[in-house]
Amino acid sequence: MSSVRIGERAGEALRVLGAASPAAVDIFTGILTHGPLSRTDVAKATGLSQAAVTKAVAPMIAAGLIVDHDPAPRGGPRGRPANPIKVDPASLVVLGIKVNPGEVIGVATDLGARMLVSAHQPVGRSFDAVVEGVAEIAERLCALLGDRRERLAGIGVSVSGDVDSRNGLVRESALLGWTGEDLGGALTERLSVPVLIENDVRALTIAEHWFGEGVGTSSFAIITIGSGIGCGLHVNGEVVEGAFGVAGEIGHLPLTSERFVCTCGRRGCVEAVASTGAIVRAVAEAGGVRDGHPVATIAEAVALAHDGDPVAVEVFDRAGTVIGTAIATVANLTGPEIVLITGEAVSDYDLYDQRLRAAFEAHAFGAAGRCRIVLRPHAFEDWARGAAAAVLQGIVQQRYTAN
Amino acid sequence: MSSVRIGERAGEALRVLGAASPAAVDIFTGILTHGPLSRTDVAKATGLSQAAVTKAVAPMIAAGLIVDHDPAPRGGPRGRPANPIKVDPASLVVLGIKVNPGEVIGVATDLGARMLVSAHQPVGRSFDAVVEGVAEIAERLCALLGDRRERLAGIGVSVSGDVDSRNGLVRESALLGWTGEDLGGALTERLSVPVLIENDVRALTIAEHWFGEGVGTSSFAIITIGSGIGCGLHVNGEVVEGAFGVAGEIGHLPLTSERFVCTCGRRGCVEAVASTGAIVRAVAEAGGVRDGHPVATIAEAVALAHDGDPVAVEVFDRAGTVIGTAIATVANLTGPEIVLITGEAVSDYDLYDQRLRAAFEAHAFGAAGRCRIVLRPHAFEDWARGAAAAVLQGIVQQRYTAN
Ligand SMILES: [Zn+2]
Ligand SMILES: [Zn+2]
Repeated sequence: MSSVRIGERAGEALRVLGAASPAAVDIFTGILTHGPLSRTDVAKATGLSQAAVTKAVAPMIAAGLIVDHDPAPRGGPRGRPANPIKVDPASLVVLGIKVNPGEVIGVATDLGARMLVSAHQPVGRSFDAVVEGVAEIAERLCALLGDRRERLAGIGVSVSGDVDSRNGLVRESALLGWTGEDLGGALTERLSVPVLIENDVRALTIAEHWFGEGVGTSSFAIITIGSGIGCGLHVNGEVVEGAFGVAGEIGHLPLTSERFVCTCGRRGCVEAVASTGAIVRAVAEAGGVRDGHPVATIAEAVALAHDGDPVAVEVFDRAGTVIGTAIATVANLTGPEIVLITGEAVSDYDLYDQRLRAAFEAHAFGAAGRCRIVLRPHAFEDWARGAAAAVLQGIVQQRYTAN
Repeated sequence: MSSVRIGERAGEALRVLGAASPAAVDIFTGILTHGPLSRTDVAKATGLSQAAVTKAVAPMIAAGLIVDHDPAPRGGPRGRPANPIKVDPASLVVLGIKVNPGEVIGVATDLGARMLVSAHQPVGRSFDAVVEGVAEIAERLCALLGDRRERLAGIGVSVSGDVDSRNGLVRESALLGWTGEDLGGALTERLSVPVLIENDVRALTIAEHWFGEGVGTSSFAIITIGSGIGCGLHVNGEVVEGAFGVAGEIGHLPLTSERFVCTCGRRGCVEAVASTGAIVRAVAEAGGVRDGHPVATIAEAVALAHDGDPVAVEVFDRAGTVIGTAIATVANLTGPEIVLITGEAVSDYDLYDQRLRAAFEAHAFGAAGRCRIVLRPHAFEDWARGAAAAVLQGIVQQRYTAN
């Protein structure tokens, strides 16, 4: 039996959130993502009467989810409509865990998606080994939380690939070598607690939209560059999930020559020239040598390009061009206001920048070219925080029920 | 002074719709697109109480917008919650006009987007000539409507290209040769009635989503093939407009070789090989001859391909491949449930079909490939009906106010 369980002090808050009406869910989401807000502001934003807002937030206040922003305001008594209220971030805690090949990274966050503790752990490559590794890191995170584990409200896990979040299935993950794995089922059984499974980039997008730079922007995209090329899309204020669970797969858009074969087996995919693996392979095949041996890591390929080696520079140029073309494709189709670029390769963004922007400008159509491209420094914990944000959203939107 | 004006018998209905709360807008939209519905069903679908639904629909019933589905039900008295209500389609009439190069097509529809009358008219190529032509066809449609013009509630006009619907501007229309034209302003001044301007494919998508095959589907795309290649996207139940008014521009996705130059000036666009103009040009340049002269029309190129001419077949194959690749791109990015293919070229779809499906299957990623591709026969009036649907949606969603 696992030592991970839903915290006793989370129960009443979870019951209130689970029983909330659609209007109350809207109200809580608004206060969570835009608070502190006065009841008047909430009423205006949702189109509900102030009385309806007061009624909806009353059980949330009783459960400790919502508190007065300023416990002792200067003018007037407490609880008046103009008195701003906010979510108490300490009222709930969640775990978010990212699965990488050979490694799991976990964080615990509060209800505001602020990281409280984190942990890394190596894992074996098999599905069973990953399940065991995720369970162990969940136990470690609970131990690190101390008393705060009594507030634990849910667990989210993110992986790259085609994920059916509703049913907890990983349908295809080229990076992990999985097809049709019931990760949600296996983890829920192992931990005796429900586990939400989400695509890693979509989870990152949820984190941005509710707790990051995307707040207040109704349409934006996050492009991740690194061992995979991913894209999380938000359109009209909602994450794009795809009718069949696939969306934002820019890594597998056919934007380059058919002579490049992708790890997914298809031809001409963006990842076939722009993933760090493809870059290392291309530099090595073109005769790129570092310290007397063929280039074998992305760090070596980067160093060679920084030294001005023409072969390495050309490979990064090609990657930058196809990524910029992919961003133009996203812009022409969905018209985001901002594109955030993040991922492991952001630390070497100078090698992509010029060609990326040139390709974007060459192919962005009309006003779609006004979209801002913004770099966002990347930390490995951000991926795990994304999984935490996904389960927070699942709890609030009543898609994740932990009992 | 134009003879076109908002009908006297539309006034009260427009006042009620304009004053509706966000919840009442939701209710009316639900009944319009999914009715007949009982008040109980409406309450369930919107999360509102039955009392709130009854209160919201009361002024709509008084204004004649909503009526009992069955005026004399067998069991129980009228007006009971279980008694289904529906929108009275005859309560309002709108005009929808599509601008083509050299021609305008107009229809009048009822509130259910059912066509009542239609008219075609040739127009000159200049902006002023188009404004005059649209005004004249609006007057003709009003004359054809007879007494029903007393219900006229709005006018919508659709054009291809980059349209700023909020401000009525056509920012760029390659097909019409316009840049930065204030079409909404010019028409509103000419007709003394506000005119909603919308991108033509987006308008078609609105028609599908509210009144067509897309009803009940939260994510779908309409691909139009013909003199342009367009795409209207619906994601999470809403039309994708783009933060800067550009979205669904699949005609200008860079999915083919850079050696093909597009009419927009960019390289490698889908339209550069798949528009009917590009097809005619390519067949003629490759020596395609029909009746002793180089191929000059799409009908001749189609006839040549149907005769098995290898040059013509290859050109259509290339067009089919790039359209299928573009559909896979849309599927991988936004994950629609259905893709509807329509447009002038649908009548010769057999020439595209095989390569289109092969390219789609080669590039669709994972479960995105489950998306159904459905052909939809095309009538020119559908485009004008799209403009009518856009202004109906604008009225209901309070983005179009006709006074
Ligand atoms: Zn691929
Ligand atoms: Zn183009």
